[in-house]
Amino acid sequence: MFKDFKLITGRPVYIQVKDYLKNLIIKGALQDNQKLPSTRELATLLKVSRNSVISAYTGLEDDGFAFTVQGQGSYVAAASHSGNNEASWTVDWKSRMNDHAWLAEELDIMKRGIRAKKGTISFTSIAPDESLFDLDNVKRAFLDRMSVEGNILLNYGYAKGYKPLIEYLKQYMEHKGVVMQGKDILITNGFTEGFNLVLSALSQKKGSVICENPTHHTAIKNLKLHGFGITGIPMERDGIHLGELEKALSEGVYDCAYFVPSYHNPTGIVMSPEKRQRLMKLMGQYSIPVIEDGFNEELRYSGSHVAPLIATAGGGNSVIYLGSFSKVLFPGLRIGWILADQELIYYLESIKRAQSIHTSTLDQSILYQYLYNGNLEKYLKKARAEYKRKYELTLQCCKEHVPYTSISGDGGLHLFVTFAQDFSVRRLLEACSEQGVIFTAGDNFFTDGGGQNTMRLGFSRVADEDIRKGIAVIGRMARKIRG
Amino acid sequence: MFKDFKLITGRPVYIQVKDYLKNLIIKGALQDNQKLPSTRELATLLKVSRNSVISAYTGLEDDGFAFTVQGQGSYVAAASHSGNNEASWTVDWKSRMNDHAWLAEELDIMKRGIRAKKGTISFTSIAPDESLFDLDNVKRAFLDRMSVEGNILLNYGYAKGYKPLIEYLKQYMEHKGVVMQGKDILITNGFTEGFNLVLSALSQKKGSVICENPTHHTAIKNLKLHGFGITGIPMERDGIHLGELEKALSEGVYDCAYFVPSYHNPTGIVMSPEKRQRLMKLMGQYSIPVIEDGFNEELRYSGSHVAPLIATAGGGNSVIYLGSFSKVLFPGLRIGWILADQELIYYLESIKRAQSIHTSTLDQSILYQYLYNGNLEKYLKKARAEYKRKYELTLQCCKEHVPYTSISGDGGLHLFVTFAQDFSVRRLLEACSEQGVIFTAGDNFFTDGGGQNTMRLGFSRVADEDIRKGIAVIGRMARKIRG
Repeated sequence: MFKDFKLITGRPVYIQVKDYLKNLIIKGALQDNQKLPSTRELATLLKVSRNSVISAYTGLEDDGFAFTVQGQGSYVAAASHSGNNEASWTVDWKSRMNDHAWLAEELDIMKRGIRAKKGTISFTSIAPDESLFDLDNVKRAFLDRMSVEGNILLNYGYAKGYKPLIEYLKQYMEHKGVVMQGKDILITNGFTEGFNLVLSALSQKKGSVICENPTHHTAIKNLKLHGFGITGIPMERDGIHLGELEKALSEGVYDCAYFVPSYHNPTGIVMSPEKRQRLMKLMGQYSIPVIEDGFNEELRYSGSHVAPLIATAGGGNSVIYLGSFSKVLFPGLRIGWILADQELIYYLESIKRAQSIHTSTLDQSILYQYLYNGNLEKYLKKARAEYKRKYELTLQCCKEHVPYTSISGDGGLHLFVTFAQDFSVRRLLEACSEQGVIFTAGDNFFTDGGGQNTMRLGFSRVADEDIRKGIAVIGRMARKIRG
Repeated sequence: MFKDFKLITGRPVYIQVKDYLKNLIIKGALQDNQKLPSTRELATLLKVSRNSVISAYTGLEDDGFAFTVQGQGSYVAAASHSGNNEASWTVDWKSRMNDHAWLAEELDIMKRGIRAKKGTISFTSIAPDESLFDLDNVKRAFLDRMSVEGNILLNYGYAKGYKPLIEYLKQYMEHKGVVMQGKDILITNGFTEGFNLVLSALSQKKGSVICENPTHHTAIKNLKLHGFGITGIPMERDGIHLGELEKALSEGVYDCAYFVPSYHNPTGIVMSPEKRQRLMKLMGQYSIPVIEDGFNEELRYSGSHVAPLIATAGGGNSVIYLGSFSKVLFPGLRIGWILADQELIYYLESIKRAQSIHTSTLDQSILYQYLYNGNLEKYLKKARAEYKRKYELTLQCCKEHVPYTSISGDGGLHLFVTFAQDFSVRRLLEACSEQGVIFTAGDNFFTDGGGQNTMRLGFSRVADEDIRKGIAVIGRMARKIRG
């Protein structure tokens, strides 16, 4: 015994000794009421200081795994840590999963994707390029905020969110032209939780929603998980096809709409200001509330500011805006927000509290201080320049190599490529994957099983050289398949 | 114009100037294509440096709010930021809320509680005492981890959680006697999200659950929100009443059970090791899986280590253990975990991904590094000593002043007081509140509308002096009401 003890660096030695002994007790190698070696003896055996063993024994006692007999030494405490055969039985969990669990697993494309081998050039991600992150500013924001109110940040916060961040975002949204009167903000664990909270409040037994086709696959998944029927409306070069939308609105009944007006996922299209006006007018005529996915509207490379739909709606309260800095700043922080009518927020707050109490106050406070310190502006300048360069490179490479029918993407972090009607992108993906290049098949984004001839190319995390190489491979394989 | 500009400290001046101008543009005080003052002129008007104005104008341009005409100056960009009357309509959101939203609001006791006036002595909280937090160790953990892999922490992580933390927790749970083979861990946004994920996967159209009565009110709320019928079993001095439990099991059909074996909320009772064995044997006989709320089992003040139910179940897979350090360490971090059969975790992972992608990697990495550095042990020593002292003081004060029938609480952060059968704690709360003392009425925790004669006293965040004063007031008022 005591021969397999190995020290690791960085963790206090006494805790390693304690953990080691606990393990022996748990496994039954040291038994109830057995006397432990003297501290001197164990120190020699484990090659650690006697103080470490003394502290380890005290720790064991604190945790209820040992006791001391005055003048005699330490003993293993009689503990209830052993399993019980009669209590040990097996559940067939798979058979107990309900329809929701089955559907969530079935729609989980992370479990269906092609595994990227090492060295694969991957155009599947539209996450930010982490090499752009300004870590020093994040560290400073953390330390600034911790020194102001560290104790408060680490204790329970409010379901609605961290107040300074809420106030900051209110002003931030006001600067996008939003009429804030009568509206309020709820902080969420990113866009996805925000979207789910809204759907939790609005879903009906036979709910139906109208949206762009294609659209964000996470949104499709969650709409389905909430039981919504989905009607997708095709896209034009400047956004959703209004004629088709009006036709659908006049023929069906919809509980709400879901739109991604800026850098639409997956097509990368920015809806024109004129179309935004006409769209919102139409939604007003049919009294359909709108869930607006603010997504990465910050990643505008050039041109005038384009106001979000919630600004277009003026003093009305018909738009629920879901914001997030995940694509722009740091996805690891998981912060998003819902900006909407204050009465709606009142209900969503209760659902949020029931689902997850509140979003990490620490993350919220770091984000707040980072924004307050003026870092977003500096960071965006750098990020926009870098992504713009990659965007232009990717576009150029596609034009050179890829036999597409059309290509879209007004900026953002991805392009959307459409091939001839009978072209199979799944076949292309298979062929490219064998050559070490992967991307996202466009059919993932379609509400009606369409899009077999489309693909999304995310370029944000691909090095220039790999963009050139990867797109050339895609082009070569596409020509080969096309025959 | 430009007279109401006021600088605040800490935020870059040029951003304040930019924000100020944006505001004027948004409000229409500066109109489309209007020429902005020269940088020299505006610098004088706003009493800032000319460089700040130059940067502000560049920022406005970057954001699409202004444009430059070579040699002439800056102009307001024609923007689509104004609302549109035709697009502006009003939704009656209240009427669109579904049953889930109504119920979430109705069961939200945070919206029903008595508002504590300033100076009120409040026994309502069982959150940790933030003055115990070792902020320097949290800072060090953050900086350590950021320097190792800051870029990775701030980008997207995995739905299952941050791998080093998962590995740490696996060992941590193994040291509580859990057989880890065939089991896996999913990281969640605290206990509450974990509980909801499990219920999302297990809920049935007419689901039913068996639990202790009284029990954790957040659990009651979420069980109801998931449509479960709840059967509560009374408590004895050493935990749930097994006779009553067996009777209920023999008479009804249950999908699962929910138990809080350690420092049960609200009674503070720790279920004895013998009872744990008998309980788990019984659950095996009736094939009822158990959701175990690990809660604050770390806050043991004395006595032997008591193994959780999932350890008692040995190599079986019938227990879903929900862990959290929220009561022990930092609730602001929102980290919990589900330890369960690996097949179940496989499904829960997909639901987690659909609901919130993943838990903040930054929080997970801070917690991991904090634990790895050996801080939990040191912190627990301090916290246990402090809470034990407060526990004993509160108990002593209750014995001196309060005319209770029984009192329970084996440690933890609260005591549970029962008065004579016909005593109204709501009346007591009203009377005490007028005297500046509040606590939690016990009826919140009952599954069957009972407990009108009970209350929970959380002492963790109350100063010694206030414990003495507050309990004296409760005692005085209780005697008065009893007449």
